[in-house]
Amino acid sequence: MATPGPTQVPNEILMAGAKEVIHHRSPQMQTLIEEINQELPKWFRTQNDVYILLSSGTGAMEAAISNSLNIGDKAIVVSNGYFGERFVDICRIQGVEVVEIRTPWGTSASMESIAATYELHPDAKAILVVYSETSTGVKNDIQSIGQYFKDKDTLVIVDAISGLLSHALEMDEWGLDIVLAASHKGFMMPPGLAFVSVSAKAWNVIDRVKPRSYYFSFARYRKFYPMAPSSPGVSLLQALQVSLQLLNHEGYDACVRRHQGIAKAVGAALEALGFELFVQDPKVRSNTVTVAKAPGGMSAKMLLQILSNKFGLTVTGGQGELKDTGIRIGHVGAVDVIDIMGIFGAIEMSLSEMGYTFDRGSSLQAIQNSLAEESVYV
Amino acid sequence: MATPGPTQVPNEILMAGAKEVIHHRSPQMQTLIEEINQELPKWFRTQNDVYILLSSGTGAMEAAISNSLNIGDKAIVVSNGYFGERFVDICRIQGVEVVEIRTPWGTSASMESIAATYELHPDAKAILVVYSETSTGVKNDIQSIGQYFKDKDTLVIVDAISGLLSHALEMDEWGLDIVLAASHKGFMMPPGLAFVSVSAKAWNVIDRVKPRSYYFSFARYRKFYPMAPSSPGVSLLQALQVSLQLLNHEGYDACVRRHQGIAKAVGAALEALGFELFVQDPKVRSNTVTVAKAPGGMSAKMLLQILSNKFGLTVTGGQGELKDTGIRIGHVGAVDVIDIMGIFGAIEMSLSEMGYTFDRGSSLQAIQNSLAEESVYV
Repeated sequence: MATPGPTQVPNEILMAGAKEVIHHRSPQMQTLIEEINQELPKWFRTQNDVYILLSSGTGAMEAAISNSLNIGDKAIVVSNGYFGERFVDICRIQGVEVVEIRTPWGTSASMESIAATYELHPDAKAILVVYSETSTGVKNDIQSIGQYFKDKDTLVIVDAISGLLSHALEMDEWGLDIVLAASHKGFMMPPGLAFVSVSAKAWNVIDRVKPRSYYFSFARYRKFYPMAPSSPGVSLLQALQVSLQLLNHEGYDACVRRHQGIAKAVGAALEALGFELFVQDPKVRSNTVTVAKAPGGMSAKMLLQILSNKFGLTVTGGQGELKDTGIRIGHVGAVDVIDIMGIFGAIEMSLSEMGYTFDRGSSLQAIQNSLAEESVYV
Repeated sequence: MATPGPTQVPNEILMAGAKEVIHHRSPQMQTLIEEINQELPKWFRTQNDVYILLSSGTGAMEAAISNSLNIGDKAIVVSNGYFGERFVDICRIQGVEVVEIRTPWGTSASMESIAATYELHPDAKAILVVYSETSTGVKNDIQSIGQYFKDKDTLVIVDAISGLLSHALEMDEWGLDIVLAASHKGFMMPPGLAFVSVSAKAWNVIDRVKPRSYYFSFARYRKFYPMAPSSPGVSLLQALQVSLQLLNHEGYDACVRRHQGIAKAVGAALEALGFELFVQDPKVRSNTVTVAKAPGGMSAKMLLQILSNKFGLTVTGGQGELKDTGIRIGHVGAVDVIDIMGIFGAIEMSLSEMGYTFDRGSSLQAIQNSLAEESVYV
């Protein structure tokens, strides 16, 4: 599986999820959850607590909105992919007025346009932005956004679901107010848990917002912390404990550097095969997924089919305008250089079978050159 | 663990949950989810589809309310325990006006009082009732409630989270409109999935209610069915497949009969040791948990502590008025006669250690006599 999430789950994590289920109000759970709660904030680079929701990332997106914005409040949404659009959809269903900063897919919004929008709408209670857009492979500049809004009343709400652990993210230093993540991306786990960290600035707002969800109430999470307010995903928490151990073993910087090195190598490999990278500006390319357009005459669909049928390898197709011509290679979570070289070996063999002309080994050569430049794994 | 949920998880189910994670839009997922979706409605005794939410049971309770009731609508809530009270809390946070039918803990509301309340509030859009109250061990009469409201506009919303599979429940025949369940009770799974089935009568209402949740939107579940609208709990779905196979192997009637036989035996065993059953009327006793008051002079807390420390057995204490003097023995899910006899063996040994005077073996004798009467496992 080389998709932008779910990702491959290391065996140690799968096995930890198969341990005997313990009761969520037992001393064993207390020990487990205290270890997790102590470790988790490190990966958000924050002094705040991190709450663990039993939901997909979408649930956490809705939770951030319903906890921090009243019906009728105004929010700015940076939208340049499916997940930005999802923020817009959730705001609307939650009765929040949306000012959209929409840029074409494959691009990111400039800080100038964000500042200009804010100046037109200084009453915006929050700005919502997706760190890494899985649909397009674009990274949005949450560091500049955070720093711009740090001394303003507007909250910065970041969907870092695929972005956390694969890119640098400094919640406290950058002034991010609500940061969301999920288990099945950088944490290398099965889907099922979402993570939310809330700044003091955000709590000031949340405490004055009229609550409209019981299940997703951050106040309830705070009240029961470190335990869960209702039945938590026990097996997933047991898996999370091992995920955090593995992450600790690798370390924060190494984890981000690995993702960065692999993303760059994948881009180079695709270009070597004649693919065109969808995100033109290398500075806004995400480390979690590389989106590329197949060369003229090549059927991206057929390539994905051969990869799936012959090699049992799931690579996802393009979305939006690249629906028929694009591929999206995911490389978030438990992905290493060997995996990537294996995947491109399979891509080359599939292209040969399709009769496409290229230099055998050229993508693998590009990967090695790219890694050597970055001094990753060499 | 002998608690009213989470319950012991059979090894086959734990191992299924540790299988390699598959992509939620892959052909393998299509096959898995189609098998699950075909099997699941049988256990709700319904022709309706069953949607699988990634949340705890509390999330499903909120989903039922936010999908089927508008802000300002009136709902009748049958409340005789913590989960009835939770329905009230969620209604209030969701802006729904509540008419409470509150009866003392340990009792159930009579059909007469429910009918009388309805006659005073014929504008109630729904009646919400917990089938099996885990906090008190009371079973509410959802069959009579369903049949009473079947030809009225009021929807019958049932929290069958611990009640499903442990008691007869005939969704279609009894006229139940929204039935909720969760993975970590009768399905013998880790917590993490909730189940919702929706009647045609309920859909008529839901389609006219102004939606106010994206994550929990039943319309979204219907639209994406049989697939999930956002990342599903893949590992839990793999576990669910095996859970349904095990349930099929036992069969619907046998499963309910096992829970019934064990509940009766547990009650008899507790009485043999001098405990007083909290639910006086045997007809409204739940099959999932037995709540009892320790005999005068015995410390329930110490008993639970010895069970935990010496035998590694988690039994929960009483709630509400039985906080200090009560015990709650859970027997839902993968519990058999051998488990129950082992548990009572440990209880007897703990009581001996506490210096409590009783006839050794008397609870085990009572279990056997009770099972013989019921022709369960003899």
